[in-house]
Amino acid sequence: MKTEHSCQDVYAPLARVEATLDALSRHPHAPAGLEGAVRYSLLSGGKRLRPILAWHACVAAGGQGEESLYAGAAVEFIHCFSLVHDDLPAIDNDDLRRGRPTLHKHAGEAMAILAGDAMTLTAFEILADARPAHLPKLELIRELAHATSAMIHGQVWDTLGGLPAGLAPLESLRLIHRNKTGALIRASCRMGALCARPGPNAETTLAAITRYADAIGLMFQVVDDLLDVTQSAEHTGKRTGKDIDAGKLTFPGVLGVEITREHVELLKRDALTAIEPLGTAGASLAELCEVMSTRTK
Amino acid sequence: MKTEHSCQDVYAPLARVEATLDALSRHPHAPAGLEGAVRYSLLSGGKRLRPILAWHACVAAGGQGEESLYAGAAVEFIHCFSLVHDDLPAIDNDDLRRGRPTLHKHAGEAMAILAGDAMTLTAFEILADARPAHLPKLELIRELAHATSAMIHGQVWDTLGGLPAGLAPLESLRLIHRNKTGALIRASCRMGALCARPGPNAETTLAAITRYADAIGLMFQVVDDLLDVTQSAEHTGKRTGKDIDAGKLTFPGVLGVEITREHVELLKRDALTAIEPLGTAGASLAELCEVMSTRTK
Repeated sequence: MKTEHSCQDVYAPLARVEATLDALSRHPHAPAGLEGAVRYSLLSGGKRLRPILAWHACVAAGGQGEESLYAGAAVEFIHCFSLVHDDLPAIDNDDLRRGRPTLHKHAGEAMAILAGDAMTLTAFEILADARPAHLPKLELIRELAHATSAMIHGQVWDTLGGLPAGLAPLESLRLIHRNKTGALIRASCRMGALCARPGPNAETTLAAITRYADAIGLMFQVVDDLLDVTQSAEHTGKRTGKDIDAGKLTFPGVLGVEITREHVELLKRDALTAIEPLGTAGASLAELCEVMSTRTK
Repeated sequence: MKTEHSCQDVYAPLARVEATLDALSRHPHAPAGLEGAVRYSLLSGGKRLRPILAWHACVAAGGQGEESLYAGAAVEFIHCFSLVHDDLPAIDNDDLRRGRPTLHKHAGEAMAILAGDAMTLTAFEILADARPAHLPKLELIRELAHATSAMIHGQVWDTLGGLPAGLAPLESLRLIHRNKTGALIRASCRMGALCARPGPNAETTLAAITRYADAIGLMFQVVDDLLDVTQSAEHTGKRTGKDIDAGKLTFPGVLGVEITREHVELLKRDALTAIEPLGTAGASLAELCEVMSTRTK
């Protein structure tokens, strides 16, 4: 019962997040088809993990949470752009996402490329014009630009290779995921924290939240790899999932399932230890870490 | 002789522009293949019209010019991203650009998509970390984000249609090009001007440079359309060029060649009138307008 109750708490900001995304995806001057394509991709459910992280990181840093809505939305636009471009025939060639045709199947490949581009730009427009006025807009923009750049680097390494020579498999995995998934999760948390008015311990708080973010960012991917194995096991009786079938490096593939499970526990402990000094302000972040470590996809 | 001499003056900052682009396209953490792809596209010649405009607009607003180098480079990264994505098979499907294979022909379609994305992000990283320190970074970012968004809108209208209903052909043409080409030329000039330390007449100066930019932005496209017709005429003996053959709206197609030529003169006069109040500070912008109105591709 506890988990169910806490889980509701953690996702309490979801309606505000959705309303913000809905409002910010309307563009009075955009071609109707482009706006429709952006909204098709952006408003298709999803866990909104990144805006939710931004909200709770804002609270953990002494804010109300709602000051983070624009920052969280900007990160979600970037996340969504990355899904749309990654799904393209030339990259992952995926036809379905969240049970619906991917954008290039729905609206054509040209529109999918341009809608992905438009979402990237909208993210920066959102931050440049973000409210409330006290937000450190330039710092937010810098965080998002560097994180998105890193995300693209991770995507290149993951799909096209070219990793630095001489890396062990585990180091390669970490480099890929620290960039591909971790950088944007880190940015979500740091940007959320930056949206709170800075208190006397702002620097220490930001450092704690950053360490938390790095731990859960990696944990997110490790859990994902584990789910790929265990869900396949449930459905097909095989121990290996689609990532391993596709020849991709995965944590269970390199470490084995048991050590990978221990790795999740270690990362969780690292995340929770990092935010201990924040006391009750960090309670929602702690709960979110719990939810992320036990998610079932 | 006069034009040749002046033309050299106008392009005097080119070496500085190229050196800046060279330096800013090296990314210590990027995958080597990605860096190579970005540099292949970015460092392939080109007139560097946008950074040159930024430089001279900076001078016109009382600056030295060199304060605009980061801003001009950011605009050029965006311009280059737009060329790479527009060339993709799903959009314009072009195999050659400036006499070399387009990026997707050279490095594959996945890399071209991701390199385009990376260039967009680099543009914002450049502005977020731009030097010198006095630059109004947030304003520069806002200008570039809105202009790039508008550019994508123009590209959607131009390649996928969906223009607002009831527009006359000339209005449609203007709407497409004000967005597709004009917005980034406008941003080049405004961003260059914003890089100068603001003097007592900063607002009036910015307004004058903006009016200049709007006029030359449209003129650029009108001249382009004229060249398409006249160059075809020279080479093939036909009066219509590839745009008209492709069924695209063009200024000569709508207005006829003679009225289109008059249109260029009117736009040139409008641009020159706009910057008259700036006196000698605007001399290079005036010269650049002259060069742009008589270019031969």
